[in-house]
Amino acid sequence: MSTTADDGAPLGLMPGQEVPFDDRGLAYGDGVFETVLVRNGFPVLWDYHLARLARGAEVLGFPAPRQADLERPLAKAPKGLAVLKLMVTRGSGGRGYLAPDPPKPRLRWQLLPFAPTPNRWWEGVRVRHCRLRLGIQPVLAGIKHLNRLENVLARREWQDPDTAEGLLCDSEGRLVEATGMNLFWQRGGRLETPRLDHCGVAGTLREALKGRVALHEVAVGPEVLNDAEALWLGNSVQGLWPVTRLDDPDGRAQHRWSLGPPHRWLQAEAQALLGYPVPEVRDH
Amino acid sequence: MSTTADDGAPLGLMPGQEVPFDDRGLAYGDGVFETVLVRNGFPVLWDYHLARLARGAEVLGFPAPRQADLERPLAKAPKGLAVLKLMVTRGSGGRGYLAPDPPKPRLRWQLLPFAPTPNRWWEGVRVRHCRLRLGIQPVLAGIKHLNRLENVLARREWQDPDTAEGLLCDSEGRLVEATGMNLFWQRGGRLETPRLDHCGVAGTLREALKGRVALHEVAVGPEVLNDAEALWLGNSVQGLWPVTRLDDPDGRAQHRWSLGPPHRWLQAEAQALLGYPVPEVRDH
Repeated sequence: MSTTADDGAPLGLMPGQEVPFDDRGLAYGDGVFETVLVRNGFPVLWDYHLARLARGAEVLGFPAPRQADLERPLAKAPKGLAVLKLMVTRGSGGRGYLAPDPPKPRLRWQLLPFAPTPNRWWEGVRVRHCRLRLGIQPVLAGIKHLNRLENVLARREWQDPDTAEGLLCDSEGRLVEATGMNLFWQRGGRLETPRLDHCGVAGTLREALKGRVALHEVAVGPEVLNDAEALWLGNSVQGLWPVTRLDDPDGRAQHRWSLGPPHRWLQAEAQALLGYPVPEVRDH
Repeated sequence: MSTTADDGAPLGLMPGQEVPFDDRGLAYGDGVFETVLVRNGFPVLWDYHLARLARGAEVLGFPAPRQADLERPLAKAPKGLAVLKLMVTRGSGGRGYLAPDPPKPRLRWQLLPFAPTPNRWWEGVRVRHCRLRLGIQPVLAGIKHLNRLENVLARREWQDPDTAEGLLCDSEGRLVEATGMNLFWQRGGRLETPRLDHCGVAGTLREALKGRVALHEVAVGPEVLNDAEALWLGNSVQGLWPVTRLDDPDGRAQHRWSLGPPHRWLQAEAQALLGYPVPEVRDH
């Protein structure tokens, strides 16, 4: 990939995107981010990303950047697929945890060429339950803030490259999400996804799907997956992965699904939202 | 204050201490920090800071910097009091939440002249209960990691400059800490402090006090403070503050303490550890 920014630096290594030591995003994770699929310069599900970023800034209590400023990096987007990562911190200042008043938020961004990896995961993935439980924090639930150590630690629970994702429950045992994706399943013909009022990130693909299909938000433990006809993981960058095998935290198979028409319909909806193809269903 | 770094920049604005966009401390709060009281170039409670930093790096799974590297900034310390803030992140790299293997940790620091503010708080402070509840995360409990949004949001619950601190319980209602300090109280002649096995930061002053006095770690709700003969808040930079008034989250007085000998003995221990004076007790 020889695409470069205006100044000749490779995409993703834009000068001027560092932050100073006293940036509160660095010091405390005091900020929010968005990871946006960009196709031929067009940001996919952009309204959903803007809405979540605005809500995150509101929860944290600083003004979100103007839309025009958030869109400026798109002028540098390459042809084809790219991922734009936007980060907005509360900026510098304040005394310790006490936030500066007024805050001067800082916008930083990175644009990287992208290919969904690996594509074969659209045809079915193996996932596992994580041991780590997410802490309950209703104030921060849903927004994509910069305090993501739980996700980092959960992702460290496996190295096997054939395990695509790990499922997370909260400290009271309710299913929440995967380390970087939302969960969806069909049970008794009904499409369900975890409620995200205690913790977790409300993904933009999940939000967009809510507008297209009947998606029931439920507070349930992981045992309901034993009764699921289909289980999927998805986000707005990678698309929707049907799950064919669910392991326990030691990597031992707990449940398997054969791909079939029940898996395909939701994937068709999600992939259409992102402009991705729907793989052929190969009946097993 | 005209103290400058070697290159003429003011203390605290050292060049080279910024981090790039892809630093994982910035992206995810994937790192740890220490805030160290420095007296005439000597780092106070240094062994305790080193121990906590090492434990934090171990929990997160990356090597801590060598002690000599952590001590290098001290050569620039001014006479008198200063605060050294050290930050160690996992560095750059990895794919999303997946950590790079091997990690290349990044050390950054800032040195600022310091005076405990305001000194009168050594003579008694007003504090309040916060509404925010800390999420439970045993894996991260005790260490001083960079995911501090809960502390930032709790500190936003009051603006009144006469309210010194806010007390925090966890999501199951146990007392944990203040936004930037640990709690200590005496009840029935017994000195107690919250257990920090579910959440909270294990302060270095708290650790050092454990070696000097009989300090009982307990899992209790805030109602025990009604029976306390004395309540203190402390950390290794500000020293130990006796509490004279405890408010509810709306700022209404809930409990008052008159300062007397029960308050003084622990303060004497703590202030001695930090080299601070013990104010006269003025009986009310």
